[in-house]
Amino acid sequence: MNAISRLMRPKSVAVIGASADVSKTSGRPVAYLKKHGFDGAVYPINPRYETIDGLTCYPDVAALPEAPDVGIVLLGAGRAHLAVKELADRGTSAAIVLASGYAETGDEGARRQAQLIEAAGPMRLLGPNTIGLVNLTDGITLSASGALETDAFTVGGIGVVSQSGGILGALLSRAAAAGIGLSKLVSTSNEADLGMADFVDYLIEDEATSVIALYMEGLRDPERFRAAALRARAAGKPVVVFKIGRSESGARSAVSHTGALAGSDRVYDALFQQTGVIRAATFSDLLDVPNTLATRRKLAGKRVAILTSTGGAGTLVADSLGVAGFETPAPDDATAASLRALQTGDHAILDRNPIDVTLAGLQPDLLRGAIRTVLDSPSYDAVAVIVGSSGLAMPDLMAGAIRDTLPGTDKPVIAYVSPHAPGITRLLNIEGVPAFTSPESATSALTALWLHEENMRRGARVQIQPDRISFDPDELPQRSLNEAEAKALFAKFGVRPVREIQVDNAKDAEAAARTLGGPVVLKLLSDTITHKSDVGGVAVGVSADAIGARLNRMRDDVETATGARAEAFLVQEMVTGGTEVILGLHRDPLGTAILLGMGGVTAELIKDTSMRLLCPQTGLSRDDALAMIRELKTYPLLNGFRGRQRADIEALVSAVVAFGQMAVHLGSRLREAEINPIFVQPEGKGVYAADGVVVLGLPM
Amino acid sequence: MNAISRLMRPKSVAVIGASADVSKTSGRPVAYLKKHGFDGAVYPINPRYETIDGLTCYPDVAALPEAPDVGIVLLGAGRAHLAVKELADRGTSAAIVLASGYAETGDEGARRQAQLIEAAGPMRLLGPNTIGLVNLTDGITLSASGALETDAFTVGGIGVVSQSGGILGALLSRAAAAGIGLSKLVSTSNEADLGMADFVDYLIEDEATSVIALYMEGLRDPERFRAAALRARAAGKPVVVFKIGRSESGARSAVSHTGALAGSDRVYDALFQQTGVIRAATFSDLLDVPNTLATRRKLAGKRVAILTSTGGAGTLVADSLGVAGFETPAPDDATAASLRALQTGDHAILDRNPIDVTLAGLQPDLLRGAIRTVLDSPSYDAVAVIVGSSGLAMPDLMAGAIRDTLPGTDKPVIAYVSPHAPGITRLLNIEGVPAFTSPESATSALTALWLHEENMRRGARVQIQPDRISFDPDELPQRSLNEAEAKALFAKFGVRPVREIQVDNAKDAEAAARTLGGPVVLKLLSDTITHKSDVGGVAVGVSADAIGARLNRMRDDVETATGARAEAFLVQEMVTGGTEVILGLHRDPLGTAILLGMGGVTAELIKDTSMRLLCPQTGLSRDDALAMIRELKTYPLLNGFRGRQRADIEALVSAVVAFGQMAVHLGSRLREAEINPIFVQPEGKGVYAADGVVVLGLPM
Repeated sequence: MNAISRLMRPKSVAVIGASADVSKTSGRPVAYLKKHGFDGAVYPINPRYETIDGLTCYPDVAALPEAPDVGIVLLGAGRAHLAVKELADRGTSAAIVLASGYAETGDEGARRQAQLIEAAGPMRLLGPNTIGLVNLTDGITLSASGALETDAFTVGGIGVVSQSGGILGALLSRAAAAGIGLSKLVSTSNEADLGMADFVDYLIEDEATSVIALYMEGLRDPERFRAAALRARAAGKPVVVFKIGRSESGARSAVSHTGALAGSDRVYDALFQQTGVIRAATFSDLLDVPNTLATRRKLAGKRVAILTSTGGAGTLVADSLGVAGFETPAPDDATAASLRALQTGDHAILDRNPIDVTLAGLQPDLLRGAIRTVLDSPSYDAVAVIVGSSGLAMPDLMAGAIRDTLPGTDKPVIAYVSPHAPGITRLLNIEGVPAFTSPESATSALTALWLHEENMRRGARVQIQPDRISFDPDELPQRSLNEAEAKALFAKFGVRPVREIQVDNAKDAEAAARTLGGPVVLKLLSDTITHKSDVGGVAVGVSADAIGARLNRMRDDVETATGARAEAFLVQEMVTGGTEVILGLHRDPLGTAILLGMGGVTAELIKDTSMRLLCPQTGLSRDDALAMIRELKTYPLLNGFRGRQRADIEALVSAVVAFGQMAVHLGSRLREAEINPIFVQPEGKGVYAADGVVVLGLPM
Repeated sequence: MNAISRLMRPKSVAVIGASADVSKTSGRPVAYLKKHGFDGAVYPINPRYETIDGLTCYPDVAALPEAPDVGIVLLGAGRAHLAVKELADRGTSAAIVLASGYAETGDEGARRQAQLIEAAGPMRLLGPNTIGLVNLTDGITLSASGALETDAFTVGGIGVVSQSGGILGALLSRAAAAGIGLSKLVSTSNEADLGMADFVDYLIEDEATSVIALYMEGLRDPERFRAAALRARAAGKPVVVFKIGRSESGARSAVSHTGALAGSDRVYDALFQQTGVIRAATFSDLLDVPNTLATRRKLAGKRVAILTSTGGAGTLVADSLGVAGFETPAPDDATAASLRALQTGDHAILDRNPIDVTLAGLQPDLLRGAIRTVLDSPSYDAVAVIVGSSGLAMPDLMAGAIRDTLPGTDKPVIAYVSPHAPGITRLLNIEGVPAFTSPESATSALTALWLHEENMRRGARVQIQPDRISFDPDELPQRSLNEAEAKALFAKFGVRPVREIQVDNAKDAEAAARTLGGPVVLKLLSDTITHKSDVGGVAVGVSADAIGARLNRMRDDVETATGARAEAFLVQEMVTGGTEVILGLHRDPLGTAILLGMGGVTAELIKDTSMRLLCPQTGLSRDDALAMIRELKTYPLLNGFRGRQRADIEALVSAVVAFGQMAVHLGSRLREAEINPIFVQPEGKGVYAADGVVVLGLPM
């Protein structure tokens, strides 16, 4: 990480293509470095100037008195690679290339980008098409973002990595206005070299950063991101992401913007969920949620006290919290008595929540006392203070009163500002009291605190490595397996198939049916015909007496439909009772996912499936598998709904884990795999794979 | 509406309990009337002053030189009714009572509120517990809201009715900051007399108002609201509502705040949907959405051109639009050629959308040309302009350039402001270009434009009054009907029951089974035992040969289970095939709702139901019924999913309408009603009511 550390905190910076005209983009980086107090060496490079803003200007990199730690390249796409080469040759640690016109524009640009990478050699590269980076902790701005025109930044604990430079500027500008404290901001954009995961790794180590906020268009290296996200969780640093590409049209546009690989948005959800990354639902949440997490306060439960001097706004916040599953219980007797003793107002209603503390809206001491009282109460896990218009006359006093209640407890204290009052909103944020202007964001923030606590608990749990399976994939053919072979493969990994006997004539079929007992299922067995029922290749509930004739008829039907003679059949026990589920594999640019679905036409219609990404080393844990099962909307069908027998969920968990193990062991050889259906029998009776598909290929 | 018109636009205002101290709430109304330029007579009333702020102060209402149009009562809950009485006696049109301590606080307060109503007599009353009203159109402020401290209001077309005074202040303050134009704002709060529907009616007639925005805690008079909302639709004025009480805890708090009746939030959704009221999803949408509707521009399709000089923000907006079902197609060749001819930038990428017009971010003329080009294009129905940091140096020029493109087309033009830039946001709104700081709000606003167009189309459709049914409810008993009676009642309204024959012995059962043909269903018939299958009272697939013995066994089983002897049975044809649905009645404080649900355990599990409120006069239209059917998540099961036969949806529509007719005709006598299940047969084969419950009582 040495080069990245030097990139984030250089002692010397060369600016290639610097202009003396600060109204131009190329004039900004040098001006901003000075304006924001960079105390290292700045070397403008431009053969057309002697000096820029009082600094010696050099004709080229070779002329510099030392190898700069970082070079900011402001030249266009036609010449940037030349400067990059010069910097690399001189021994610079990292270059930042701002020019656009690379992979984001098409094939010609992709060629230019490859040329850039080659020119950089061992030197690290940020960009191209980036707006650069801003290190607010140390007052270092390596960026041309117009958002640096302001100097009212709040230095704080949120580290930002954005795949868009424009969005970096928007976040910087909005955070500055709201008093939300940031540590570092990096725009990775085209990620020709350094990508999102590199900076997540850096921010995990960065002491000034307590929360990592990501603006994501698409991941180029999902495995590195997964590893970085898991490291962040282990380090207790929450990661919050706003990801676009949720719709097809958005995804198309994200691809054109930075050329990031598009995976299915649902797989991203699975990735975020499995690694404890919190997904922001709205763009504004990408600042509001990290701002709240950065307080490092702990939400131990879901009971929120709302203190208000203006009824309507308190109710608004209560409603929003209620929709998200928070509770706003009335004060217990002792708390109500303590509040009453404060004499917060003659009409103050203290046996309800929102707790009406009319006069506290005007008297900071009363407000302080009321907040302390509810923070001390065992009835509440967090406090939301409503700021109405009455407090606006003395914003400092009111903000100070709320801030004063923070020490001595780690319960969250947040504020909702009802009128337009950017001054007090900013003050509160600066004082460490997350302040919201939308009730929905306040709710998202408390929800994120809750998710973070859950992540911490989950992260602490030991992951048990499933048993190793002695199995040589090289023994397998390279083709579609027929049903019997597919189920034999599933069985190797521990998924029990229904009992079945392979036959090729009427007489053997009858014997097989008698062996199995009861009515049976007769199926065509073929490694080329996958939709057996379409060609008349499935018959259910066939008796031993009738099966011979039925087999002969099936042979005729299949021959009529396909022109080929059926050579083999399966006689299967007919499983009754139980619940049908399906288990499948989904290959995605983000990785391999396991998909579990409830069987039946209604479940298919409502797309009742759950999904997890497979860890390429360990597959899925039992916890993952159980969570997948519980996530199904129709999970109660397995869990004793309406007097049904509870299904053998333990056995289904084992089957899901086994299916994942199969995918891990076969790796890229496993092109397709599906068990459809699995019959989940009542508790203690196990599961049966009744049919399945496997397509094997050469390793990729 | 005369008194309400005078309340909204009085020529004279008495302020009872006015204070000379403007730092007090009671000092504000007189100060605000002067500050905001009220040109009528202001009469402060307070026996302790001779004058207030240069105005003659009167000792009481009797001493006034004339009967004031409006009296603002600032006295506390202990004395307000005395002032109200004096005003009523003097002939004042309307009084506004600000004091709290009424129905919102409990029984004692409710008593005080009744006293207040009595004191008002024929005089209209706004409040109590209100912050008053603000008429920005005419510069009349009858309010103590601290939001009136500012004077930077934008006068515009949005009329606001809020059931919370604090929220009225928040909306006023936020609209002022954002440059969003309002016409009138009224806080109805406790609604002792005048309620939300009164002011909706007023705003429909008000020429200055083009959109009505409502902050709703709960409706006290749903029927009047329904009528007002339908009138607004007929007048082409969109109504946008933000309603709380969505969660149980929020509802509890709303009830305590103003004492409004709580209905189920889902029934509110049905009411809004049936009357064309647009529900705002977030609080900020309650300003952003009306602001866009107030432009009166028309969205004819869902294709949006996004013009941007900053890639990231354009993509962000495209993604948000895409999630909501909007399209962002690339420019057609002619449009791309026109854009290219404008020379908007060397790296400008014109064959994509977001359309990158880099230089237009700096040059107003280019921006104007680019917007006009895409507005003229047949490929787009609306234009979203992204304002990046480059435009901030000349906000007036950029805002003016966008505004200049409005004439000559009625396609919507909106702006998304990426950095924190309140100045240009405000300017754009004032110029009639709705400007958004969140991509989600921009999407909500365009969605609302689309919904409004759909509402207008729907509103124009002729509603056909269903046939009158000759039927005398007095003939019906006052008790639970047994299954046969219930189905006979359904049949009277046109819902065909399955064929069935009532029997009381084995021999008749056999004859009945032979008459019906095929295997049949045998059921206990009882008006006291509702869960027949729990007591062994249902047998399916019974043959005529076996039915006699089966009946005798059923009689024994029922007697064992209940201790009572079964006297009657039904022999029913066994309907096979088709899809089961259920149809029920739901009584809610908001009205009577009809509930349609898909049958089956999975549908029950996912609560797959749709709901409509019954119009007490006309019931449900066929359009309503069809929409209910289509709204079911599993609707495809009825519509030929996966090669199934399409179900007889027309017949199901008729059954839903008939069920509604039954509820209209029986009115409050119908305590409970359910048809469960209805078998919907394949197209052309109709539907059958197979079982049902009806409970009848005395008229209420």
